Parts: sequence; C-alpha cells; structure tokens
Amino acid sequence: MLLNPNLANTFSPPVMEARRWLEGKSFSSDLPLINVSQAAPVDPPPEAMRAAMADAIMCQPETHLYGPVLGLSALRDELAFNINRHYGAEVTAANIAITSGCNQAFAATVATLAAPGDEVILPTPWYFNHKMWLDMGGIHAAALPTGADLLPDPDEAAAMITPRTRAIALVTPNNPTGVEYPADLVTAFRDLARARGIALIIDETYRDFHSCGGAPHALFSDPDWDDTVIQLYSFSKSYRLTGHRVGSVLTSPARLAEIEKFLDTVTICPAQLGQHAALWGLRNLDGWLAEERIEILSRAQAMRDGFAPLAERGWKLMGCGAYFAYLQHPFEMRSDQLAQALVDQASILALPGTMFTPEGDKSGAQQLRVAFANIDATGIQTALNRLVAFQR
Amino acid sequence: MLLNPNLANTFSPPVMEARRWLEGKSFSSDLPLINVSQAAPVDPPPEAMRAAMADAIMCQPETHLYGPVLGLSALRDELAFNINRHYGAEVTAANIAITSGCNQAFAATVATLAAPGDEVILPTPWYFNHKMWLDMGGIHAAALPTGADLLPDPDEAAAMITPRTRAIALVTPNNPTGVEYPADLVTAFRDLARARGIALIIDETYRDFHSCGGAPHALFSDPDWDDTVIQLYSFSKSYRLTGHRVGSVLTSPARLAEIEKFLDTVTICPAQLGQHAALWGLRNLDGWLAEERIEILSRAQAMRDGFAPLAERGWKLMGCGAYFAYLQHPFEMRSDQLAQALVDQASILALPGTMFTPEGDKSGAQQLRVAFANIDATGIQTALNRLVAFQR
Repeated sequence: MLLNPNLANTFSPPVMEARRWLEGKSFSSDLPLINVSQAAPVDPPPEAMRAAMADAIMCQPETHLYGPVLGLSALRDELAFNINRHYGAEVTAANIAITSGCNQAFAATVATLAAPGDEVILPTPWYFNHKMWLDMGGIHAAALPTGADLLPDPDEAAAMITPRTRAIALVTPNNPTGVEYPADLVTAFRDLARARGIALIIDETYRDFHSCGGAPHALFSDPDWDDTVIQLYSFSKSYRLTGHRVGSVLTSPARLAEIEKFLDTVTICPAQLGQHAALWGLRNLDGWLAEERIEILSRAQAMRDGFAPLAERGWKLMGCGAYFAYLQHPFEMRSDQLAQALVDQASILALPGTMFTPEGDKSGAQQLRVAFANIDATGIQTALNRLVAFQR
Repeated sequence: MLLNPNLANTFSPPVMEARRWLEGKSFSSDLPLINVSQAAPVDPPPEAMRAAMADAIMCQPETHLYGPVLGLSALRDELAFNINRHYGAEVTAANIAITSGCNQAFAATVATLAAPGDEVILPTPWYFNHKMWLDMGGIHAAALPTGADLLPDPDEAAAMITPRTRAIALVTPNNPTGVEYPADLVTAFRDLARARGIALIIDETYRDFHSCGGAPHALFSDPDWDDTVIQLYSFSKSYRLTGHRVGSVLTSPARLAEIEKFLDTVTICPAQLGQHAALWGLRNLDGWLAEERIEILSRAQAMRDGFAPLAERGWKLMGCGAYFAYLQHPFEMRSDQLAQALVDQASILALPGTMFTPEGDKSGAQQLRVAFANIDATGIQTALNRLVAFQR
C-alpha cells in the first residue's frame, strides 16, 4: 500500500490502543473497571451551560453556519480579558486564535515554525500527540530527558540546540506527569529560546487546576513576550467540553496570519457550538470553575495522602498535579505489560510510561500515568487499594 | 520571524481575503450585498433536527465527552448503509472515518499518501484548500489544466505522472466549476490510477445535489475499489451543518488505521454534536434532502435560464451545477480586480478565478465563481441583472 513513511513510522494513538486492551473483557460488579487512562471529565458541563447551548441550537441560526477561521471575535475578546486578568497581561483578540481543541493548536503552531528536517525539543516523558505530530511532519522530536523531579534543565536544552532547532515545547502543569514548572524555570526557558532565536511553546491546558491560584509564571508581563512565546490552552477540561473541541493559541498577530492558513485548510472554522459554550463559560462560570479547581486539587491530595502503603511496596509518586499522578512501579516488567496486567487483575486502565517516552527509554518502562481527576476521592482510594493488592 | 517556508509560501485563505474587501464598506437598502463567495447554506437545519440536537445537549451526557477518534460507530454504520444504497456498494463501517469537515478528510488522506517532495495531480481550476494543504506539506500540486468543458483529460494526466506522483484528486460535482464528471471519465481516472499504482481521491461534497438522482459513478460496484479509490464526503451542505464540522473518508481499513493517527493527533475526535446531528439526518431527513436537492437544482436552472442577457454582453456560463456557476467574463481586467469592482459597483461578492488557478494562469484571470445556491431564484435574477448592468 502506498504510504507516507513519515506517518507510517509514527505509532498508533495510545488511548485507542489502551481501549483495545478492554475488548472482549468483562468486569464484575465486585471489581468494576476504573478507567484512568484518558484525561477527560466524565460529567457533562453544568446544566445552565447546557441550557445556553440548547438555546443557541434552537434560536441562534448562526450557530449552524460557518464562522471566522480564527474563531468568534466575541470569544477571542473574552479570552483576552481572561488572560489579562489571570496573568497580569496586556494581550488582545489580535493575539488569539480559537482552535478545534488544543492538539490542533499545537499542530497549527508547529506548522508555522518547522519544516521537514527541522527539530523541536520536547522534555520527556512527553505528551504523545506532540511527538506524533512532529513525526508526521518529518520533524525531529529531540528528547530532553528529565530527572527524578521530572523538571527539564535549561542548560541541557541549550546544549541540544542545533541550527535546525525551531522551538522548545513545554507542558505545565505537565501531561503526563502532573508536575508544575516553577515560574523561574519557565522564565529560564524563555530566555534561552529568545537568546537562540527559537520559539517557546507553552501548553497550559491544565492552567485552571494549578495549585497556585494566581499567575503561574511571568511570561506575559514582558511586553515583548510575543517575539518568543506561544501559549496553548484548552476549554475542554475547564468547562467539561472535551466532546466539542475548543482550544486556543496565543501568539503574535504576524504568526496568527500563518496559523489562519493552516486552520482554514484543515477545518475551515472551529465548531461553533463549542465556541458559544466557551464564551458562556468565560462570562458565567468563574465561581463554578473555582470550585471545580478545589475539587481536582482535593483529588490530588487524596492521591498523595493515600500513597504510603504503595510506597512501602516500592512504588514512587514521582509527580502529582493537574489531572495526573505519575508513578514509578517496583516490578521487573515493562510498564506496557504491567498496564495490561492491571486491566486483567485489578480492573484498572492506566497508560504505561512507554507511551510517553522514546522507544528504548528505560525510565518509561518503569512508569505509569494515572489520570486521577477522572475519579473522586473514594475512587482514588479504591484504585490505590487495588494497586497495593496487585502482585506480579 | 521564524517561519516554515512551506506555510509562508502558500497563500492566505481566499474566503477571508474576499471578506476583507467588504471592510469599511456599507451597502444601501436599494442595493444590498449579495454574497455568493462561499458555498454555505444560509439557513439553519430543519427544526426537528435542531430539537434532536438540543435534546442531545440536555439529556445525553456523552455528547459532551470525547468520542472515538474515527467517529461514532452508529454514524459510521449508518453512513455505510447510505453509501451502499446510493452507489450499489458493499462498504462497511470499517471503511469509514468521520472527520471534522471535508477539508480535514482531504488533509488526513493526503497525509497518509504523500511525503515532502511527492506530487499530487489536481485538475484546474482547483479547490484552493487542496492546493494550500499540499503547499504546507511540501508536496507539489501538479496542475492539470481543463479545457472549455472544464473536464480533465485522463491521457493528459497519464503524461504527467512521475515516480513521485502519489494521487490524483478529483472533485465532482466540482468546486469551483459546478461541472459533473461523467461516470466513464471517473472510471477512466480510476483505471489510470490503478494501472500506475497511485490513489484516486474523489471529493463528493456535493454528491446530494447531483443532477442525476442515482449513483453518479460505478466506482463502488468494483469489489476491489479500496485498492485505489478514496472518497471524501461532507454532511455540511446536505444537512446545513457547516458550523458543526462533519465530513467523512471512505477507504481501506489499512489506510484508515493511518488516518486514525492523523485525526487523533490533530483533533482527537470530531465534535460530537455534529455527529449526532448527521446520524439523525441520515435516519430522518431523506425526504427533506430530496426536496432540498430539487430546490438547489431549480436554482441552477434559474442561473441557466437567466443567462442570455449576459451571454449577449460576452459573458460565458462555463459550468453550472451543485452549488456553483463558473463564469467567463468579457472584460479586459483580471478577475481579482473585477471581483473587487463588483463589490463596489454591483454589491456582489464572488470569488475570482485567480483564487482557483495557479499563479500566472491566464484562464483564471477571465473567470468568476458564483455560489448561487446561497440565494433563491429571485436573488439569482437580481444578481444576473446587476451583472448585466455592470460596466467597467
């Protein structure tokens, strides 16, 4: 079969692969499946938002028609206001594109920066769709390993930069590890990127669940931020809109004109209803989101509080924040085998570290991502108990 | 600014550029704007479909959650049934991916076929987003000029095939010309593609508005169709769902596995509500769609019936079908200048042929696309009258 080798050589979607581990299996009511594989709210948005969406469907005909490529201008305005308040920034709608989810925001951003043969630096463990997009474009994903604290080192990144390097992409709070990058680390990466004339992409999908309520970094208080920084965001987690595909890119107006080409060609416009919902959320759900954040933070705390019995059995809680706990397991088996054994023996579906690390990377084989935010504190305790009971 | 030259070198979205021609202009109530620039239904979907969508929003929580990368399985099943009935085919859900609109279907398909440096043959005038996607991927869009009948010649295509050619992409009914490719022409292209080991991509976005009610070609009665043929389709025009972004790809299961990688990485899943709506439409709107088709066909007839006074002034109706009339104008000015003059003097926004042809192509400079399906027969007569009255 005629195949583009760049696409053929990248891996299959990990979340779909993990779902296939469930095929043909049944789970008893004694031991129902706990699915912590994908970071995805399991409840719908609040009822008032759903009512506003239904109203748009019935009474606002434009919801059904094409919209602007870069998104609804009211949403871009409102997001600019929100960003300025959160970060003490001074951005405008002219800096913002609305995208069909945050994966598309990354794809569009990289498409403006890198051609085949170029390189983008990704700390590992990485977010697998970032790696996949680079593979598909014939762009080298230069892996920047992190240590026990899961934080990337700017000096090590500096040593990796070549004439073909176009960007460094950070995710904070991090997917898959849950770690929050300290503000000064983020600044150091920005300084490095600026000094070397490359871009700093910062994916803040989990921004609204950061353990600090204020600005998590000072990037946007720099008036020249947009010469270097490109921020990605998603409404999916904050307002439970994963099924509607709404994300954003924050960058310079000049780069936005290039992003507009990509978005027009790939989807014409983001789905309108999701944009209406995001706009409604920005205008009405500040209080609700604050409570959501407290709930998610309490789940992270439940993870930490309940971890001691696992630590006694040799497990390590390497990172815990946003939606994720990142675990080191004590077994002499690869994490992808462990993950499948956990389905069979513990009715837990979690993604192995091998899905977040380069092929052959030994650290990934010892790690496991648990998307704990999908389940409440009781569910977390149940999952931890099952892991404690699990034996090879 | 650091820019990927492949993206920087492609053009800006034509529809957005044309919209900018309207900026700062006002149109009197005597001469209101007639916008025939974008093929887009101007009315929302029928009320019963909107009610089903609102119900999904309020009462079906899964509408708000991530769905399968390749789309809802019920929708894939129902579309397979629909295709089998329409074409006398025997495809299954395992041949179908649901995409975030038909542009994404093309992008995903090409991503599976062609690497940078490869070539794809596009008849001209081409659909601009096809050209843009190839540009962005560093893939050469080999222009296959059509003659006065706007039909591509398989022999000319055969002469253009090189070792780097990966596909020929046809659009029928055609955008921008409205021309329907005869079944035997489509077969000839399939035979050529198969003989040379390349793919035939056939974009049938306007399938439901074909002047013949039955199967427009015999591609799918060939049991081996999926070794060569990849069909693209869109629910946007048929059910007035442009704002919801729902399209599809029909191909072999093996290629679908590659398409799944692309779709997962770029959008994770198509927006769920649009998929619910498309499914509801397939199950409930056959009768409604049949009436829509008759209405659109009557608009094409109004275009042809009213054209004589323009023909007397040297205009030519080169193509007329689906959503589009493709016109040759009699003026000694480039069509992009004419299009802007038409905004100012006739309050008509239409896209110039220059937007559908390679740079420097002289035929495009004489042509104009009119998306007549956006307006009713009265509106079409008004537009024709204004063109008759237009003078340089």
